[in-house]
Amino acid sequence: MFTLPQKDLSAPTTCLGPTCMQDLGSSHGDDLEGECSRKLDQKLPELLGVGDPAILSSDTSYLSSRGRMIKWFWDSAEEGYRTYHMDEYDEDKNPSLSQSDMQRVEPSLLQYADWRGHLFLREEVAKFLSFYCKSPAPLRPENVVVLNGGASLFSALATVLCEAREAFLIPTPYYGAITQHVCLYGNVRLAYVYLDSEVTGLDTRPFQLTVEKLETALREAHSEGVKVKGLILINPQNPLGDIYSPEELQEYLVFAKRHKLHVIVDEVYMLSVFEESVGYRSVLSLESSVLRLFPRCALCRLPDPQRTHVMWATSKDFGMSGLRFGTLYTENQDVATAVASLCRYHGLSGLVQYQMAQLLRDRDWINQVYLPENHARLKAAHTYVSEELRALGIPFLSRGAGFFIWVDLRKYLPKGTFEEEMLLWRRFLDNKVLLSFGKAFECKEPGWFRFVFSDQAHRLCLGMQRVRQVLAGKSQVAEDPPPSQSQEPSDQRR
Amino acid sequence: MFTLPQKDLSAPTTCLGPTCMQDLGSSHGDDLEGECSRKLDQKLPELLGVGDPAILSSDTSYLSSRGRMIKWFWDSAEEGYRTYHMDEYDEDKNPSLSQSDMQRVEPSLLQYADWRGHLFLREEVAKFLSFYCKSPAPLRPENVVVLNGGASLFSALATVLCEAREAFLIPTPYYGAITQHVCLYGNVRLAYVYLDSEVTGLDTRPFQLTVEKLETALREAHSEGVKVKGLILINPQNPLGDIYSPEELQEYLVFAKRHKLHVIVDEVYMLSVFEESVGYRSVLSLESSVLRLFPRCALCRLPDPQRTHVMWATSKDFGMSGLRFGTLYTENQDVATAVASLCRYHGLSGLVQYQMAQLLRDRDWINQVYLPENHARLKAAHTYVSEELRALGIPFLSRGAGFFIWVDLRKYLPKGTFEEEMLLWRRFLDNKVLLSFGKAFECKEPGWFRFVFSDQAHRLCLGMQRVRQVLAGKSQVAEDPPPSQSQEPSDQRR
Repeated sequence: MFTLPQKDLSAPTTCLGPTCMQDLGSSHGDDLEGECSRKLDQKLPELLGVGDPAILSSDTSYLSSRGRMIKWFWDSAEEGYRTYHMDEYDEDKNPSLSQSDMQRVEPSLLQYADWRGHLFLREEVAKFLSFYCKSPAPLRPENVVVLNGGASLFSALATVLCEAREAFLIPTPYYGAITQHVCLYGNVRLAYVYLDSEVTGLDTRPFQLTVEKLETALREAHSEGVKVKGLILINPQNPLGDIYSPEELQEYLVFAKRHKLHVIVDEVYMLSVFEESVGYRSVLSLESSVLRLFPRCALCRLPDPQRTHVMWATSKDFGMSGLRFGTLYTENQDVATAVASLCRYHGLSGLVQYQMAQLLRDRDWINQVYLPENHARLKAAHTYVSEELRALGIPFLSRGAGFFIWVDLRKYLPKGTFEEEMLLWRRFLDNKVLLSFGKAFECKEPGWFRFVFSDQAHRLCLGMQRVRQVLAGKSQVAEDPPPSQSQEPSDQRR
Repeated sequence: MFTLPQKDLSAPTTCLGPTCMQDLGSSHGDDLEGECSRKLDQKLPELLGVGDPAILSSDTSYLSSRGRMIKWFWDSAEEGYRTYHMDEYDEDKNPSLSQSDMQRVEPSLLQYADWRGHLFLREEVAKFLSFYCKSPAPLRPENVVVLNGGASLFSALATVLCEAREAFLIPTPYYGAITQHVCLYGNVRLAYVYLDSEVTGLDTRPFQLTVEKLETALREAHSEGVKVKGLILINPQNPLGDIYSPEELQEYLVFAKRHKLHVIVDEVYMLSVFEESVGYRSVLSLESSVLRLFPRCALCRLPDPQRTHVMWATSKDFGMSGLRFGTLYTENQDVATAVASLCRYHGLSGLVQYQMAQLLRDRDWINQVYLPENHARLKAAHTYVSEELRALGIPFLSRGAGFFIWVDLRKYLPKGTFEEEMLLWRRFLDNKVLLSFGKAFECKEPGWFRFVFSDQAHRLCLGMQRVRQVLAGKSQVAEDPPPSQSQEPSDQRR
């Protein structure tokens, strides 16, 4: 190995590679990461599907074999680019990012950046989550990966944590799209922890998750030859509108730790808790504790720092599903790096990253304007729909978080079948009301529906009017149209 | 089946689901597509990895089995949402998008949209490509899918066209990152068509792709048990800076047609042809022709409309790699739909979609300001680096397209090995010049390097000065530092 020492070691690095023609506001870069810096002495992983044992049997046991390959690509492709960025040639220093102009277009925002996300944004995310999740210690930007939404994060985590056909446990009913998110790219499946509405004791509530049910589901998966790698918790829960208490969370974490399971905590509704009394707690707020079972084991901290991965996004809490912004918080650097490697495919525009940083740092507006108003509206809308349902004598669940009420329409299904549930759903649709039926959440009891109430009052009113129409007509088991449309005037506005 | 007919069939559909709280500028939607509209009478594909034969053996033979599953999720999950959007309740009609305010934030831009991309953007993309690709007939928005960059498009196409471990043919040297793009999620490999610098006849040029070489590579892949599903062509080529003539393109298309191969044409540098004389032609400009071999076969059109998939992005031609915008053009609706289904993971912000539409429609600025200036700068930079290389007596290739020159440094490798190539690369890096070495492009001849010249003059000057330093020192085979740094003044500026 030979090198020519530089006369002037502080001279800037010139890159005959990605740079910009600044006057024109355009950068003519090229993604060199994968190209110009691969070491020949690092062996490429076998791309024929099996993988080089030397690479894939590394000690990063938190990752699947393909997760290790994904991370390998990141590690091995970085040297040149890293060297360039550590000592980059740029006569004009990056201006401060403290301006609050949301529409700023900085040349660097239009160029390839760290696939984990721009540092200025990860710093803001870390501060934001520290504050709103009430973390005992400040969260760190290096544990943050930003990407274009929660769907992508499920896809990436599934792929880097599981081999094809392995599984995550998930309590049902659950937000059904997760099925696709872990399956379409990752070919990972879900092992259901079926919950039901029966209340069995003083301390229980409908659809309550217990460790006993987790253990049963895990045993069943094993007995079917399915390897389970993790547990997905949605908190606040979708579609139940429920939250887990810190004690419940702790029990689930102990269960996961016992079985060496990753825990993915989807907290995408964490700022949409509109009833303060419910006492929502982020998993990031839990004080690190030591398992009583293993008091001397330094590795036995809870939440397990290497196996706890927290998701948040702006789709729900800021009502911006079209903005495409999500973030992962994990202390596991193997996982963070492997997910970042996949962020080539889940990257979000530098312009949006800049705007997001401005939004997240605007704590005054969020605290004094946005959240109070949003919570007040959610509460009013929730109250309206709840009262409508009570007036109709329809049972429902909701604990003051999220955008939805989990509604029990079982009495409208004479035979109590999923076919009837589907027919009822279609009648709502025919009457121009789009609801979500329980089967889409893998609810095991036919007849539950999710009513989203996060809407304007006059729309909710029209929607509930149509709901009443459908349910009023439901007793007439009409196989063929048309029964007369008997609207009850007294039902029109309540 | 029973439905209640509506008194007023033209009444708007209210969705107790995704909507917006408009006053606050926030939408509280939820991705219901996967949830609320799945038909129970459509059987879910088996998520255990194998797939339901009834779904996966459908007649959409252009897709892989997982591609069919991906498309199935899209098809089956759309009914409710489609019904809602066809008759959406919105008292304020969408305002016209004809304003040229780049920074507009329309509420609809912040909500879930068509995963193919907003229609207003796909319309602009179709017009843009029709104009710049010189298509014989106007291109159609329904054949356009937009997403967050070319990397994502390779990932999605590989996954929906190939089973795991199947392959695409690709001529080498090629843009090496494609290896990751088709592999990390899709587990698809590349089968190399090795080209070399030898000129064998009057009509050939270095690294020329011929049908004979394609046939050989295909045979070799088959003999190794590798199933080849398509051919990737990069035009203009990266790293060669070369372009394919219409006649060459036609030959490759006939080859692909003969073997029923998909052809992915990556035209990401199509607007960066700075020498007009080279006569670049997009594959979308080719008149549809009928294969002479099968003159009566209506299905034998070339380019094969069902197997030709064209990529473009703004990363190179508009120098905005950080913006994350790419687009697919394909007439194959199965492929378009399956890719769109994966766009849940490759979506770009509605804000960026709006900005992109404004940019693409600004034909005056693009034609009269941007492209002439960009081409002039590329040409000047290319001329400077070319002359520097000539002065150094270093051979190189470049035909007037792209941002790079393919440089032959073989004479600096005494033994002609890849190890030496790597050492030379590291010496450039140690001297603060980041180049790309040939092995990263799977070039079969050690000693080729890619020099990116799309940079400002003073940076190129400094870079070439350092290149000269490294090459001048190269004759001293110094295993250990430090030889004295003998800068030759006459070499400083040429």
